[in-house]
Amino acid sequence: MSSRGFFLVLEGIEGAGKTTQARLLSRWMAERRIAHCIGREPGGTRVGEAIRDILLDAPGTEIPAETELLLLLAARAAFVHDVVRPALMRGDVMIADRFELSSLAYQGCGRGLDPDAVRALNAFATGAVRPDLTLVLDLPVAAGLARQNRAGKARDRIEGEGEVWLERVREAYRTLADGDDRVRLIDASASEADVGRAIRKTVEDALPESFFRRRG
Amino acid sequence: MSSRGFFLVLEGIEGAGKTTQARLLSRWMAERRIAHCIGREPGGTRVGEAIRDILLDAPGTEIPAETELLLLLAARAAFVHDVVRPALMRGDVMIADRFELSSLAYQGCGRGLDPDAVRALNAFATGAVRPDLTLVLDLPVAAGLARQNRAGKARDRIEGEGEVWLERVREAYRTLADGDDRVRLIDASASEADVGRAIRKTVEDALPESFFRRRG
Repeated sequence: MSSRGFFLVLEGIEGAGKTTQARLLSRWMAERRIAHCIGREPGGTRVGEAIRDILLDAPGTEIPAETELLLLLAARAAFVHDVVRPALMRGDVMIADRFELSSLAYQGCGRGLDPDAVRALNAFATGAVRPDLTLVLDLPVAAGLARQNRAGKARDRIEGEGEVWLERVREAYRTLADGDDRVRLIDASASEADVGRAIRKTVEDALPESFFRRRG
Repeated sequence: MSSRGFFLVLEGIEGAGKTTQARLLSRWMAERRIAHCIGREPGGTRVGEAIRDILLDAPGTEIPAETELLLLLAARAAFVHDVVRPALMRGDVMIADRFELSSLAYQGCGRGLDPDAVRALNAFATGAVRPDLTLVLDLPVAAGLARQNRAGKARDRIEGEGEVWLERVREAYRTLADGDDRVRLIDASASEADVGRAIRKTVEDALPESFFRRRG
């Protein structure tokens, strides 16, 4: 997308630290007066939050895989329309919690949907909006689940599928990161501070010079 | 789809009489002991009803066209999975209120989404399930709206787009019926009884002999 902004996506299984790291990154950008905003998906819009409620219902609720993907993409289309595109048009850095790679890892590899179909559907939902950089926060599934438990978070319907299933999702992320120079794998098993440093280093290298020169 | 059942879809703008005619058709089939079931979409499943609530919210609620289509298809995928496919596998006649043609008429022509994309997305949502016969209940938009008003029904978010817009949807239906021998146009401006007779005649001609021979 030829816009003035920069679209940055954080990806990874639950417990990888996406939310925490997005917050740290936001603080770092604020200190440098880099105009930016954060959004999560599904959600981030009124219709998206309603979809999120349907999707993340109690574990065990049966929803066909096709329905799950189409719901996630419906939320993504609204997120792009209402949040991402306006931010990029303003010239901001848009930091998103999950995007296309989640669909490929969870619904493609995890649920067994055809990855080409997932990509085509995602392209319909997102139009010309593509992440400039995607960071996959990678850590062993057991470590992610332990973090979730320590934080007292209940697993939702999707994450509730179990460790073997999540292991497949993690592997999918690693494979997806491998062949694409707009996707970087970040070791997320280190401490919060170390992961934060690795992320900032990668973002600093990737973010065009102009974003640092805009200070008031 | 090579199943033993028969998939019949009623289409048309609101006020065309789909719900009433589905009920009349069901009564006629019951008298002939033709195993059948009726379903509407969006809805017809737990997840579908939740999606319906999001979609048919008060007029004026802004939902991007892509989100609207993806939500409808998410509901359709669940409807096919939970209702249509099991009915067809049992060998029943499945009577559905709306299916692919609604997406092509309302979201394709009405909202301006690419019809090829709509068809491809619908194919993903419905798999190999295709209607054996689709009946488009056709009548002037003003007549449909007048019926709706007499019935005291409020217009939902989609139908609330206004007459000019609905006129485009009606024309799309007529065009779609034109080139496809599995789609028939029924004059729905006649009386309830006359429309019912026309529908039964068409269904009787299209329904394989075997469905009439299954009487207990």
